[in-house]
Amino acid sequence: MKKIGIADTTFARVNMYKSVVDELASIGTGYTTERYTVPGIKDLAIASQRLIKNGCDIVIALGMPGPEPIDKQCADQASRSLLDVEIKHDIHILEVFVHEDEADNETELAELAHNRAREHAINAYDLLFRPDRLQRAAGTGQREGHPDAGPIRR
Amino acid sequence: MKKIGIADTTFARVNMYKSVVDELASIGTGYTTERYTVPGIKDLAIASQRLIKNGCDIVIALGMPGPEPIDKQCADQASRSLLDVEIKHDIHILEVFVHEDEADNETELAELAHNRAREHAINAYDLLFRPDRLQRAAGTGQREGHPDAGPIRR
Amino acid sequence: MKKIGIADTTFARVNMYKSVVDELASIGTGYTTERYTVPGIKDLAIASQRLIKNGCDIVIALGMPGPEPIDKQCADQASRSLLDVEIKHDIHILEVFVHEDEADNETELAELAHNRAREHAINAYDLLFRPDRLQRAAGTGQREGHPDAGPIRR
Amino acid sequence: MKKIGIADTTFARVNMYKSVVDELASIGTGYTTERYTVPGIKDLAIASQRLIKNGCDIVIALGMPGPEPIDKQCADQASRSLLDVEIKHDIHILEVFVHEDEADNETELAELAHNRAREHAINAYDLLFRPDRLQRAAGTGQREGHPDAGPIRR
Amino acid sequence: MKKIGIADTTFARVNMYKSVVDELASIGTGYTTERYTVPGIKDLAIASQRLIKNGCDIVIALGMPGPEPIDKQCADQASRSLLDVEIKHDIHILEVFVHEDEADNETELAELAHNRAREHAINAYDLLFRPDRLQRAAGTGQREGHPDAGPIRR
Repeated sequence: MKKIGIADTTFARVNMYKSVVDELASIGTGYTTERYTVPGIKDLAIASQRLIKNGCDIVIALGMPGPEPIDKQCADQASRSLLDVEIKHDIHILEVFVHEDEADNETELAELAHNRAREHAINAYDLLFRPDRLQRAAGTGQREGHPDAGPIRR
Repeated sequence: MKKIGIADTTFARVNMYKSVVDELASIGTGYTTERYTVPGIKDLAIASQRLIKNGCDIVIALGMPGPEPIDKQCADQASRSLLDVEIKHDIHILEVFVHEDEADNETELAELAHNRAREHAINAYDLLFRPDRLQRAAGTGQREGHPDAGPIRR
Repeated sequence: MKKIGIADTTFARVNMYKSVVDELASIGTGYTTERYTVPGIKDLAIASQRLIKNGCDIVIALGMPGPEPIDKQCADQASRSLLDVEIKHDIHILEVFVHEDEADNETELAELAHNRAREHAINAYDLLFRPDRLQRAAGTGQREGHPDAGPIRR
Repeated sequence: MKKIGIADTTFARVNMYKSVVDELASIGTGYTTERYTVPGIKDLAIASQRLIKNGCDIVIALGMPGPEPIDKQCADQASRSLLDVEIKHDIHILEVFVHEDEADNETELAELAHNRAREHAINAYDLLFRPDRLQRAAGTGQREGHPDAGPIRR
Repeated sequence: MKKIGIADTTFARVNMYKSVVDELASIGTGYTTERYTVPGIKDLAIASQRLIKNGCDIVIALGMPGPEPIDKQCADQASRSLLDVEIKHDIHILEVFVHEDEADNETELAELAHNRAREHAINAYDLLFRPDRLQRAAGTGQREGHPDAGPIRR
């Protein structure tokens, strides 16, 4: 039995947690989940660390940075700390950030957040249970939330 | 009994410390506070570390970066060190930075600083005593100091 | 017998893994390879760390960052974590990133990715087995994927 | 008896070391000083670490970054390493950087460097001997080298 | 007897290694040298670490970043890792980077690289054997490769 940690924020405008657990339930079994909610993306690193210390085998970190330059700076700080925690504990943390300026309107933004969360839930499941599936998709231009870019050839 | 650390600076132009302790007092009990004042935002990381070493269960780091590009760079450095300390000790540090260019005039800036400090005081209290309250607010577009953005739907 | 780790992504649009193993096979023997595929470039650092923990003597990390400013930011984060892992374990990690805006069209991009992967496979082999070959090429303007710049003189 | 470390560079164009020791002498007693001179600002982190390893209770790191974008990048690197050393050893390092483009001419630049060094000497003394003095000045808009910004109110 | 490590790259277009060893030979004795050549500037951090682990008392890291924005980003990553290694081992690493856009043509670039390498060789020697020489030059506007800026006064 594996444990999947899910860290999310009150700052985000979409309940990506629900997208993740729904998708995971549709894929398969063999895991439990634990959730840790924090105010903002900068708090996701310690949330992830605490989930790891509680025995999670992988963590999905959900966040929605704002559209301003200062928001990009905050997202950068948050990402680096997530990477630091990941390397320190040698546990995968899948960063699922949806930037507010990635979509043209709120409906599209919510859809993008939902889809990206779902597709990273699949990535988490694959990393834990089906690494061969990732290997077969290597170099094929997979995208999470947006349409796949696809492979290119010489 | 929990201990809440509060780090602040002589560089800041608003007494956010007072906003924090007043708000905390209005929320509830079960905690003591300890304060550590430093010259500027870059000194907040070591201040937070020392508060943690003195037994604080959470730290609120209060700062007001200036409006110039070099100030953004300093704020970025300060934020990263706060994150490093947070991960090193596995203790939440709530960064409460108010950038001088976030408001149109000094009165609004002071008001913003006051409100952001207050709302993060609530976050600190929730992280310590009421994590379920944060979980219920996940994905609902909460903002500290500014009006909440609110949730969006597909 | 040495072990060469190869980390790659499903995000990349070119199978650079194949370019690396083909080139290595054409150079010589004395090594085995191990592969670890992850979703994106930010996951390459933990992939490399796990390859190192599995006994790899060197790692080649293959990625294709997108063309947008946020992609550059992600590539920067990924690079720094690769460096952190490299220094932590004192094992060379050759970062082989091909940015989508480095070529004018998809065919050229695929060719560039192929060539860069091949040339870094040679670098990996040299670092393991032929360090004198690198020393003789010091200061001669070698480039991976693009034509060599060549040496310049006073 | 406390020990105050002072790190400075041959790159700087002003003898800020002299400003610091003169100011410290005018404030009070109870300390000795140790100096470590390095070529440039990137060397200040190891200089500070060595001063700390030699028993310094606080370090003042003096530097004058150039005016070009690459100089800002170097200053950023230097600042982060100073922060890393500070957190690693839990010893305050006061970064006293004067950027060449902060003043309109060389005379003003020298004056600014002198004043900033002096005011941070006072900060160092306060952190060691008079922390209450800092606490009373919290949130009052203190500036080092430039006129104080002063407090603002709602 | 001290050991001076010299790390260089095949990417660089000038044999700065030769400039360093020639200059060192002209200054004095009391040291041996060890060389480690890597493909690019991002590999200099691990090269420096390995030189340090082999007993070097100081390291000179020679690199020539390209002129594009992505090259500046790579140089930034490389610099930060060099600083990390320096602080981790408490051994000076003198970063000697020559950016391709620092000179107007190839001849000037080669001359600049040669001169900067030579002047940092002197810095390395001074840090090891003549620290008083650096202290006397503190605050005097020394530059490596370019003409000295000189001291300024109030």
